[in-house]
Amino acid sequence: MTDAILDAALRQRAEAVMPGGIYGHQSVRFLPSAYPQFFSKGEGAYLWDVDGRKYVDYLCGYGPTLFGYANETIDRAYTDQLKTGECLTGPTALAVELAETLTRMVSHADWAMFCKNGSDANTMATMVARKHTGRHTLVIAKGAYHGAAPWSTPFPYGTTPGDRAHQIFYEYNDVESLEAAVREAGDDLAAILASPIKHDAFIDQELPNPDYARRARELCDEKGALLIVDDVRAGFRLARDCSWSLVGVEPDLSCWGKAIANGHSLSALLGNDKARYAAASIYVTGSYWLSGAAMAASLATLALIRDTNYLEETQRLGGLLRQGLDAAAGRYGFGLRQTGPAEMPLIMFQDDPYLAKGYSWVSNMLAQGVYMHPWHNMFMSASMTDADIDFTLAAAEESFKALAKENPQAPPPQIVALNEILHAA
Amino acid sequence: MTDAILDAALRQRAEAVMPGGIYGHQSVRFLPSAYPQFFSKGEGAYLWDVDGRKYVDYLCGYGPTLFGYANETIDRAYTDQLKTGECLTGPTALAVELAETLTRMVSHADWAMFCKNGSDANTMATMVARKHTGRHTLVIAKGAYHGAAPWSTPFPYGTTPGDRAHQIFYEYNDVESLEAAVREAGDDLAAILASPIKHDAFIDQELPNPDYARRARELCDEKGALLIVDDVRAGFRLARDCSWSLVGVEPDLSCWGKAIANGHSLSALLGNDKARYAAASIYVTGSYWLSGAAMAASLATLALIRDTNYLEETQRLGGLLRQGLDAAAGRYGFGLRQTGPAEMPLIMFQDDPYLAKGYSWVSNMLAQGVYMHPWHNMFMSASMTDADIDFTLAAAEESFKALAKENPQAPPPQIVALNEILHAA
Repeated sequence: MTDAILDAALRQRAEAVMPGGIYGHQSVRFLPSAYPQFFSKGEGAYLWDVDGRKYVDYLCGYGPTLFGYANETIDRAYTDQLKTGECLTGPTALAVELAETLTRMVSHADWAMFCKNGSDANTMATMVARKHTGRHTLVIAKGAYHGAAPWSTPFPYGTTPGDRAHQIFYEYNDVESLEAAVREAGDDLAAILASPIKHDAFIDQELPNPDYARRARELCDEKGALLIVDDVRAGFRLARDCSWSLVGVEPDLSCWGKAIANGHSLSALLGNDKARYAAASIYVTGSYWLSGAAMAASLATLALIRDTNYLEETQRLGGLLRQGLDAAAGRYGFGLRQTGPAEMPLIMFQDDPYLAKGYSWVSNMLAQGVYMHPWHNMFMSASMTDADIDFTLAAAEESFKALAKENPQAPPPQIVALNEILHAA
Repeated sequence: MTDAILDAALRQRAEAVMPGGIYGHQSVRFLPSAYPQFFSKGEGAYLWDVDGRKYVDYLCGYGPTLFGYANETIDRAYTDQLKTGECLTGPTALAVELAETLTRMVSHADWAMFCKNGSDANTMATMVARKHTGRHTLVIAKGAYHGAAPWSTPFPYGTTPGDRAHQIFYEYNDVESLEAAVREAGDDLAAILASPIKHDAFIDQELPNPDYARRARELCDEKGALLIVDDVRAGFRLARDCSWSLVGVEPDLSCWGKAIANGHSLSALLGNDKARYAAASIYVTGSYWLSGAAMAASLATLALIRDTNYLEETQRLGGLLRQGLDAAAGRYGFGLRQTGPAEMPLIMFQDDPYLAKGYSWVSNMLAQGVYMHPWHNMFMSASMTDADIDFTLAAAEESFKALAKENPQAPPPQIVALNEILHAA
């Protein structure tokens, strides 16, 4: 593995002009030390870091690039629209076309509003629910990520108690816990907010228990509250509809981002007619929310979602990866915890409370040209092929072999540091 | 004037799939009825609506397109970067280059963080100030617009009292009012948040009184609070530095958006070393915040800001427009209230309490191919020429002539409706 000379130089420059260096979810502060911070190129399923090293990338920009980096069809739609109408003094017809297209594709949705961040869509959903009900309380799954606005950011620094008031937490997939939270909300329940699957960091992923999802729907109906599914991360990765269509439950509101425009800046709130008046009442806006180019890219992305077998392919390749990894791990005496849907995999090790094995293994994978995450769910790319899976499994074989020799036990320093921060928060 | 057939059809379709039709600041609900809602093209200083009518546009997408629509140099930088690295699994070197460039250009700034909405930058500024001080209270100018997040949206629908707690309001440019607000904040003052100029809708604009700006700085220093300038709308339109460099006052934090990437989705929070630790402590992030292409466009925009006389030109053309309008208005017996900097003009009529004259006049301007706003500040484009000003003044001559005949008195129905909503809020 070549040295990360340019990466190190950029990190030093970043430290000087960005607080603490790179911030947010793309900071590698808590990843193994060999992980590059800066990248120079993405193409299809591959990523190049600034020192020229190529990786098969299982993060897809943390979700957005479902159809691969620099997808020609989608990016042509973007650049063509850039020539005619991007950020104008009003919207283009694309805003209407995109709303029509999304409401045709997503069963529960009668309308759409567009924004830029997943956080925007989630925040707007809470505003719609609060306006609709005239109440305040949100019932939210404990540990779920719904963005990094003052009301939702996982670390409360710089927020006020008022920002985070009126929130009651329950255990995902636990009907009794959900019922208890709703009871506690009393006559103030505005919404139940749920991720479509449990895709929290650091822990095993869970598919939604259909009983739990149905009970969430029933409780909202009983209380006159709205059911919100935060599909920002998983939307169109599990289904060509809202992810809870898989368990037969229709929310009132769903939040979208990431894959809807294959990496171009766009997010959306979709809702049903019940929530329409409230959605028309709230005042939300942004300088770029109605810009044309990302909408053109989204329409091109949605066409691929409708017209290709991307879903079945990412599921098939994710399944091959999962099987192959389990088999290879077993050959070296390791047990894996592979959780979540195969197309949004999380790979952790059994008997690895401090992620020592995980950190060592992904570092070895990285050195062989495979970018995986030790504690955040990953994403299959529709531009991956069987050859990429073969390449990954060959790297995995070597990495398990190396891991068996290393047998690491000590908690990685990054995990020690992260735990200290989590405890202080 | 041709009929707005396609516009009307799109509005009808939008009503069906977007709550209340187009939302936010680009809705024409409260503009004269002839105003088109949908546009098909922007190029340089010109805008085309979906029915093919061309306008000299004085809104610039409500601010962003300082160097004209579809600016070739800037958009080439964007599309070139799209081919190599847009939304990757980590940032590109452009994030560092852009932070270095902005901190070189903006005197008070030692660091930068990037985001997507002006609201993001303002929200992050409040979080940094609250983390830095360990206090909650924000002192904010009454009626100022700082975005449409739950804490800032001008209409409180769907927000909770907690979202909007810890805010004390003062009158812009009024030192006594500012001092009283700071006194009221007591030992809980986290920040004074100010627009660089008073650019509120519906009222005359005001440049900052230097005594007021200096007093804001002193009060923050006395109380250990942070001074925030919200330069989202005016940034780089009044100066090649933070807008308060014009009155010799350096804030601790400044918020940027709009013109920094000429319409590509990007915003930024800049800060000084005093605020660095707090900025590194808050957890904020977004799926697209570190994407490369808008940063490449921003670097190209900033190069034009440094290397061209765009500022002097927009001031000169704005001055010509202002003089010409005053002269033409006088010839027909009208007095204008032209306020704000010439490069960010607001044009209203004297003796026009219900905007009857204003609505009639801008409708006539529109019919002649000039897009102006009756109550929101406008923006000169660096791609405008003397010929555009001549064209505008010729249209103005005709519009004043028509207005003198019409002599409208009744409040426009849009203003009646808006006032009802404002009173209900």
